[in-house]
Amino acid sequence: MEEQLPKFESTFSIDCVIFGFEAGELKVLLIERGSEPFKDWLALPGNIVGNNEGIEDAAARILHDLTGLRGLHMEQFHTFGEVNRHPRGRVITVAYYALIRINSQKEPKPIDVFAKKAFWHPVNELPKLAYDHTEIFQTGFTKLRRRLSYQPIAFELLPEKFTLTQLQQLYEAMLNKKLDKRNFRKKMLSYGFLKELDEKQKNVSFRAAKLYKFDRRKYTKIFQSELSVEE
Amino acid sequence: MEEQLPKFESTFSIDCVIFGFEAGELKVLLIERGSEPFKDWLALPGNIVGNNEGIEDAAARILHDLTGLRGLHMEQFHTFGEVNRHPRGRVITVAYYALIRINSQKEPKPIDVFAKKAFWHPVNELPKLAYDHTEIFQTGFTKLRRRLSYQPIAFELLPEKFTLTQLQQLYEAMLNKKLDKRNFRKKMLSYGFLKELDEKQKNVSFRAAKLYKFDRRKYTKIFQSELSVEE
Repeated sequence: MEEQLPKFESTFSIDCVIFGFEAGELKVLLIERGSEPFKDWLALPGNIVGNNEGIEDAAARILHDLTGLRGLHMEQFHTFGEVNRHPRGRVITVAYYALIRINSQKEPKPIDVFAKKAFWHPVNELPKLAYDHTEIFQTGFTKLRRRLSYQPIAFELLPEKFTLTQLQQLYEAMLNKKLDKRNFRKKMLSYGFLKELDEKQKNVSFRAAKLYKFDRRKYTKIFQSELSVEE
Repeated sequence: MEEQLPKFESTFSIDCVIFGFEAGELKVLLIERGSEPFKDWLALPGNIVGNNEGIEDAAARILHDLTGLRGLHMEQFHTFGEVNRHPRGRVITVAYYALIRINSQKEPKPIDVFAKKAFWHPVNELPKLAYDHTEIFQTGFTKLRRRLSYQPIAFELLPEKFTLTQLQQLYEAMLNKKLDKRNFRKKMLSYGFLKELDEKQKNVSFRAAKLYKFDRRKYTKIFQSELSVEE
């Protein structure tokens, strides 16, 4: 049974939408909640901001408490402030997101009992989440997708050396649609920011593919020059 | 003397950074505060969110109370949550911005006594503002400037028909630097989104300049196609 807590007047919380890419799949970091309300539900890692804690510090602390991860570059993407979004009173939540390569991170594991577990879940088969977390996730995903066309974010999700298939899988996962292989490769190579390496994939059973690297300078520059009036 | 109000536990506020363009100058909408703290200081239009008010509704209501303007398309751009940003207690503020053509709006005029007056102020000679409003303004201005290179925002600031000089003034105001006239015109015309009209400026004393219009479809498309993988 849900315990009766006193209603609070108003408070702030943080919710984190952490995207990771692994084995051709785009994933999001979820927790299983250990306490009411929404006990046992899946949710984004999130909690209340302390009275003496700035919100940027709170975001890092809360993510660490609930998932064990730290040192991520998180960015605010939206603040959700509908009157009835929380069953216990007025809570405005500031949502942050981050992008990481899953392999470069240790396995998520909660420190706080508030989360029973923390794990990566594919973005495409998301169950209904606690509170308005489904909406928060969707807003973050939409913003991420938009950033794909004007910021060099593929960098943050792919390993340092990757195949064109991995790059295509990333775009397909983001856009949630299949892309034509020939057109995709032609277009991506035409931008000139991919450096072909003298190396192939290792540990694959069949037809090892060529590896590529981003030319970080060119990749970043292409986003800056568009419609710029400066030389 | 400053009156002593009880400290509140925690609360939310809204601050609005409204950019307008007029006569070649980029401006921001300010109020002169009518009450403590920071009585008589210049500030961004901002106030506390009501208990039963969603933050989007609060943003529209507060802007209207303090400046008389309404119907603007405001967007959140950042939430400021440092512990000591407000002298009376913990206040997290959600900052919104909007872009408008000043001529299409009526003169700003406060409805609430909380503001003594409301007026447009050039962005380049801004005095020190109340609270952390100088920082909020700067963050909004930086975001606006970044949007100039990936979203069709010049649309929202220029009159429907404009001269190339007005377009250049807008870019110069945004980037806060002088641009070479010949290069600017060549570059802008090369994009193909400017439609030359069979009309000239009226009511000017000397050498009426040609008027242009945006080809809205082309102007919007140029921002969508960049690094897109779709045809």
